Amino acid sequence: MPLLPVLEGLHSAEAFDPAFLQAFLDRVRRLEVDPDGFRDSLRGRIVATVFEEPSTRTRLSFEAAAHRLGAGVITVADPKTSSRAKGESLRDSARIIGGYADLIVWRHPCDGASRLAAQAAAVPVVNAGDGRLGHPTQTLVDLYTLNQAWGGFEGRTVGILGDLAFGRTARSLLWGLTLLGARVVALPAPGLDWEAGFEDRVAERAGYRTVRVSHPMFRSWTGSEEARLLEPRGVRQGTLFGDGPPRLERLDALYLTRLQEERGAVAERGVYPGLRPWQLEDPLLADCLFLHPLPRRGELPESVDEDRRARYFEQARNGPVVRAALFLALLRPDSWQLPPLVSLPAGSPEPDLGPCPNPGCITRSEGIRAPWRVAGRRHRVFLCAYCDTRIPVEYVGCRSSRRVHPLHSPAVLQIRPENLRPYRSRDEALADGYVWGGG
Amino acid sequence: MPLLPVLEGLHSAEAFDPAFLQAFLDRVRRLEVDPDGFRDSLRGRIVATVFEEPSTRTRLSFEAAAHRLGAGVITVADPKTSSRAKGESLRDSARIIGGYADLIVWRHPCDGASRLAAQAAAVPVVNAGDGRLGHPTQTLVDLYTLNQAWGGFEGRTVGILGDLAFGRTARSLLWGLTLLGARVVALPAPGLDWEAGFEDRVAERAGYRTVRVSHPMFRSWTGSEEARLLEPRGVRQGTLFGDGPPRLERLDALYLTRLQEERGAVAERGVYPGLRPWQLEDPLLADCLFLHPLPRRGELPESVDEDRRARYFEQARNGPVVRAALFLALLRPDSWQLPPLVSLPAGSPEPDLGPCPNPGCITRSEGIRAPWRVAGRRHRVFLCAYCDTRIPVEYVGCRSSRRVHPLHSPAVLQIRPENLRPYRSRDEALADGYVWGGG
Amino acid sequence: MPLLPVLEGLHSAEAFDPAFLQAFLDRVRRLEVDPDGFRDSLRGRIVATVFEEPSTRTRLSFEAAAHRLGAGVITVADPKTSSRAKGESLRDSARIIGGYADLIVWRHPCDGASRLAAQAAAVPVVNAGDGRLGHPTQTLVDLYTLNQAWGGFEGRTVGILGDLAFGRTARSLLWGLTLLGARVVALPAPGLDWEAGFEDRVAERAGYRTVRVSHPMFRSWTGSEEARLLEPRGVRQGTLFGDGPPRLERLDALYLTRLQEERGAVAERGVYPGLRPWQLEDPLLADCLFLHPLPRRGELPESVDEDRRARYFEQARNGPVVRAALFLALLRPDSWQLPPLVSLPAGSPEPDLGPCPNPGCITRSEGIRAPWRVAGRRHRVFLCAYCDTRIPVEYVGCRSSRRVHPLHSPAVLQIRPENLRPYRSRDEALADGYVWGGG
Repeated sequence: MPLLPVLEGLHSAEAFDPAFLQAFLDRVRRLEVDPDGFRDSLRGRIVATVFEEPSTRTRLSFEAAAHRLGAGVITVADPKTSSRAKGESLRDSARIIGGYADLIVWRHPCDGASRLAAQAAAVPVVNAGDGRLGHPTQTLVDLYTLNQAWGGFEGRTVGILGDLAFGRTARSLLWGLTLLGARVVALPAPGLDWEAGFEDRVAERAGYRTVRVSHPMFRSWTGSEEARLLEPRGVRQGTLFGDGPPRLERLDALYLTRLQEERGAVAERGVYPGLRPWQLEDPLLADCLFLHPLPRRGELPESVDEDRRARYFEQARNGPVVRAALFLALLRPDSWQLPPLVSLPAGSPEPDLGPCPNPGCITRSEGIRAPWRVAGRRHRVFLCAYCDTRIPVEYVGCRSSRRVHPLHSPAVLQIRPENLRPYRSRDEALADGYVWGGG
Repeated sequence: MPLLPVLEGLHSAEAFDPAFLQAFLDRVRRLEVDPDGFRDSLRGRIVATVFEEPSTRTRLSFEAAAHRLGAGVITVADPKTSSRAKGESLRDSARIIGGYADLIVWRHPCDGASRLAAQAAAVPVVNAGDGRLGHPTQTLVDLYTLNQAWGGFEGRTVGILGDLAFGRTARSLLWGLTLLGARVVALPAPGLDWEAGFEDRVAERAGYRTVRVSHPMFRSWTGSEEARLLEPRGVRQGTLFGDGPPRLERLDALYLTRLQEERGAVAERGVYPGLRPWQLEDPLLADCLFLHPLPRRGELPESVDEDRRARYFEQARNGPVVRAALFLALLRPDSWQLPPLVSLPAGSPEPDLGPCPNPGCITRSEGIRAPWRVAGRRHRVFLCAYCDTRIPVEYVGCRSSRRVHPLHSPAVLQIRPENLRPYRSRDEALADGYVWGGG
Repeated sequence: MPLLPVLEGLHSAEAFDPAFLQAFLDRVRRLEVDPDGFRDSLRGRIVATVFEEPSTRTRLSFEAAAHRLGAGVITVADPKTSSRAKGESLRDSARIIGGYADLIVWRHPCDGASRLAAQAAAVPVVNAGDGRLGHPTQTLVDLYTLNQAWGGFEGRTVGILGDLAFGRTARSLLWGLTLLGARVVALPAPGLDWEAGFEDRVAERAGYRTVRVSHPMFRSWTGSEEARLLEPRGVRQGTLFGDGPPRLERLDALYLTRLQEERGAVAERGVYPGLRPWQLEDPLLADCLFLHPLPRRGELPESVDEDRRARYFEQARNGPVVRAALFLALLRPDSWQLPPLVSLPAGSPEPDLGPCPNPGCITRSEGIRAPWRVAGRRHRVFLCAYCDTRIPVEYVGCRSSRRVHPLHSPAVLQIRPENLRPYRSRDEALADGYVWGGG
């Protein structure tokens, strides 16, 4: 399987693992208490911030981080003056800007753009939000904020509320929380859940299972009193009374998100869930920290701002120091070594499995092939290597045995990754000389 | 009276006083002659410039100032990528950016925006122009330029010509000149005078009176040979000959401004006053310095550029050093102490006196209450605490005596500020249990 | 002849000469191998980048250069927030920004803008592209890239392919290559040749002649197998066989450019020449380096990217170090002295020869007179001193002898430059008291 090179930088929260996250959160703290000690750490280095979607907050947070370490900053802040506006490919832009800067922070409207940019640039690329796919540094900020309050994640229960379908911060956070052992309640706005395959993939990676819990307040958010809870497999469930799922007694944190209208999200019947004043007194939220990546709309009323449980402005304040720590990890491994990020395979462009089914995928706007990678331990899943969308594969051959099997055949799990040869149809495989291996 | 907290930073030229200005102008000079001595004064600090109106000149001037002191700069230069464009409140933006930077320079199209931003941000905010309200750092630049030429302001007469109604630089300059003892001739374009209450408030604060003077040239500017002169109360007027006001013999400086079309200003019959070549020879202007905040239109022809009296490019050149001195005053009081700015009360939101009458007020676009403050020694005037617009108050109660009086009753002047309870109508006051105290 | 002052900065590749270029290329190399040695060379200095046309690449390249030397950077990146959008003259903008920064990098849509800006600003201005006129720092980058590969230019043959009419990089490169002794083949897209006068002027300055050469591949580019070759006068031509011009056996470099659609360039019958895969195997290109200023369109397919002859991403990578060297030459002549640039006369506004014939000239958009300068050794040519467009002059008087002659009279070549008095018509000259000197 001809693999594309491993990606440098940080593109997806899937690249985190517990050792990295624990060490990273410790390091942020060290940086926070001694900013002057790192004032010249990146002197003579240049950080480029390329924002091809309107943004103020995230860009300024990254730029403040770079300045705090003494780096120079070069910026593309206006989508209309960007490469796309002039018809240049993302790859050319990345390769060129990689010649000017030591690290590039990139925000892009297409899913998977960060990974493609990283392949072209000769320097690390940090994903500052790509389409609806991910926003891993926001997750680092979120985790740092919670860790400062809690000192750890075990036994904590976090609700993620709102637009899970289009919200990249929610998607990234699910990776982060499950890798650190927290329990997560998915509270999607009606019609705005993430695709099932995503949650399954996260749960499998983290060793989690999904159970159901209930609380009357959930109805006001999702339309149902029941919700999915992702928890570590080893956790003992409470005894069940009666017929329904157990009641959730408390949330330790509630992560609110806004409706991602700019990505086409629409609230069902115009109602979008948020925090209401009457909910603040409910025992479910008695010690619940309120987080929000901001900007907010109506889902988080200003009356909560002075509440002792509000942490969203603290999140914003934590942005620069967390991002500074990431810059140090990527540009100064000599003095700031961390456990490595998980290297995701960058995927194989052969065979060509056709266009990525996701119309927002970067391969669509760039007019290039969608390389694929494989995930899943119990079932092989073929994903677009850029945007993680599942690619329809029905049959899998083994390059070594020259046999082909249906995707869900147990035999497929025995094929070594480098020997996988996916097909959309059995006839294609047979035409390639594969022998039917049965399923 | 529940007061909002005192505002940090610099929002209005009303916050100046003579001791501050004198000391400040001295300090600018020290910085100008020894730039290298201050090259690292703000090293490790971050200045944010947030420009929600198109601007090049002022933004660059502030940013050059920050760089000269070694600060890092983060910028929002495009109104379309700003918080407002994404529906975020100014308060949220200010609070968040205040978590990234040590000081924020803010330009905003709404009157009073700077004060509101300062209440939300945890760091000093410097007003770089808010609506038509003020532009206090431009005034510091103007005063420095004049001080360099004159060595002082006593006995000097300055004409302010053009769009006084919408020109924030003119409005701020009137505060500055009167606090330093200069005489000011108001020369508004026809139909573009500032509201009478403003001039009265400035005059009262500075101990000035308004008299009339005349000169034939005034007719070409304002449509009348007569104009208002603001002068210190102690100044002896020249003897009057004949019926009319005394003729003004000379102007020491003429401050030109352009028509603020972007704020809706319209020149009567399309004519807008400026400097004409034939006027340059008139004795009135024989030693008159010409100032202009730029950019200019037709009111200041290029033929004046090489005239010995032209000072407008020198003003522009003075921008960075003056602003650098302000940064030092706000961020390095340890080594650069100045007499304090006058602390303006941030106002009380109780009782709710209804929406601010000024449609350009920041309270309108933010959808919040207009807090009020009180000004005036001879007559109590109730102002919007953000935009300084007069709020219609007709009756005033005393929270201590529980009596209510008409606004202009001498009894109102006896009420201590913290006991003031303004009402729009007498009936409201009586319904609140106040007793009619007469007037 | 009242001359405008000599221009500071770098506005046109015409200002290069061989000694400057050789020394400059050496210096770039020194900077490239020892970046840390120059990290603080511009500490405390400010570079302004003013881009009044959309640009990412060039602006970031200049800004990276400034940061690598420790300078502060202030930026105008959005044409809509620029001075022109607010109706300010380029001269006022330049004068003001020159008061904020130690050097200004300016990109502008009008031909000659850089020279006009330099006259107004009190600091050096570097042209980052003005209209279709020139882009001299790109030429320095191009020359450095070729010099690194070749170690010198003598005997090398470079094809310049594409939109010569509107391409400023091609125009500037012709100056650079001929000053260094390389041979140049002009390969204009059909209908997109530069004006003949331009090539003649370059050839005369460099001591070059134009001959014709042929190759079958040229037909696919220009529509003809024959092309113009500019070569040093001393070069011996190969023996001619048969009737046609000699065949060109090899190109050492091919400089591709895109169609400048934003300047109104249109490809004839929609076809625009570029590199085609089948051409890569032709002996003509066997050792031919491929350069392109980027961004590219279809003229340079991505399949060439990994070819050993591709140099365009290396060009991009060389941008910051080349521009850093220029900053040092202009701002630190104390420690980084170079042979001087050729001082072009800034031109004379007297007599007023009427508006510049070039509608894209900066004098048109500024509404000012077009000053003229004189060029040509064998024939006097009168050029707009800003945009180099030929001004129609038919008669020339001598201020000393008071005689007037037809432009092409040998007598005109005898008139000292300071005595030249151009006329559009003979009658004008006679009316001014000149005597007919014949021709």
